[in-house]
Amino acid sequence: MAPTPGVPGTSAHRRESYTTESLLAVAVEVFNERGYDGTSMEHLSKAAGISKSSIYHHVRGKEELLERAVGRALDGLFGILDESGARHGRALARLEHVVRRTVEVLVAELPYVTLLLRVRGNTSTERWALERRREFDHRVAELLREAVADGDLRADVDVRLATRLLFGMVNSIVEWYRPAGSGAASGDQIADAVTRLAFAGLRRP
Amino acid sequence: MAPTPGVPGTSAHRRESYTTESLLAVAVEVFNERGYDGTSMEHLSKAAGISKSSIYHHVRGKEELLERAVGRALDGLFGILDESGARHGRALARLEHVVRRTVEVLVAELPYVTLLLRVRGNTSTERWALERRREFDHRVAELLREAVADGDLRADVDVRLATRLLFGMVNSIVEWYRPAGSGAASGDQIADAVTRLAFAGLRRP
Repeated sequence: MAPTPGVPGTSAHRRESYTTESLLAVAVEVFNERGYDGTSMEHLSKAAGISKSSIYHHVRGKEELLERAVGRALDGLFGILDESGARHGRALARLEHVVRRTVEVLVAELPYVTLLLRVRGNTSTERWALERRREFDHRVAELLREAVADGDLRADVDVRLATRLLFGMVNSIVEWYRPAGSGAASGDQIADAVTRLAFAGLRRP
Repeated sequence: MAPTPGVPGTSAHRRESYTTESLLAVAVEVFNERGYDGTSMEHLSKAAGISKSSIYHHVRGKEELLERAVGRALDGLFGILDESGARHGRALARLEHVVRRTVEVLVAELPYVTLLLRVRGNTSTERWALERRREFDHRVAELLREAVADGDLRADVDVRLATRLLFGMVNSIVEWYRPAGSGAASGDQIADAVTRLAFAGLRRP
């Protein structure tokens, strides 16, 4: 749940109690529930409990909220590629690092990555987000290709197909993972399960 | 693309040229594009190029179209569990059979399975579809459990988590697979890649 600051309180109190960051958290929840296209400034104003003009005090509008939200998810994902584990060592080890960390970022930034994965491409911000996602996918596919060339990955899997299936598995986590669920696996346990399944398979060695 | 029969033609000609089956194909396309909730009888009538009353000649309404469409996907999926390969032999072999055939059914019945996977649960038909999907998942989880008990699957993967990741990978295919795509993999090639990745992993043995 996003923070719901300043309830009860005066309108002024509520307005003051939002930072752009905490307003963003509310907006992302609404976007994920209604879809970005289906969300109006009116919906955002109601969900946040502040007036539209108070929202305009923080951002130029709905699209800037989207830009900041998917930007946060993308920063998290691209940040992985700059980590030492993604830059040094054999391609296979770098690939495993990237897959594991992608799961961790996804779980840590769940609503933001969920929004990123649901972006459709109707506005320029959405198209930019899709473009950046593709770029991330290409970087991972490149690692896969290198690991095949090193002889560390089986050569009988098509790299493009394997990348898609890998991301299909990873991205599906946003559909069912709920941090508060009873007996819910931790991000770490999920990351373990994903890397094990993806690299070693389910069959007993 | 769905067939667009009877264009150009008289209204009567168009109405006559639809079977419930071909009308269903049009409806499923519209549902997948606009979402089931966002689709009205008006939308369906426009897409089919026939009047609403002509549609009522075939079905009681929008919900019956949904029921028939997801029913077709569910029949395909549950049919797999009755196949000989899913009923005889070690649990691991049965599980591999089910995973491979699930991919094949998904590719063969792409729009119908896509619709099934997007169902939300707002109407009783949607809730029934979700219930049946869960039942299918449980049957596959049961096979996984048996294969672990047989000692054929690694014991260090949580069955519930593994089932989710497995279906996450399989179901993601509806997001990118387009049969007409240039250089598109066949259902068979995708089924191979999925079973290989899921059971043997990407790493070279």
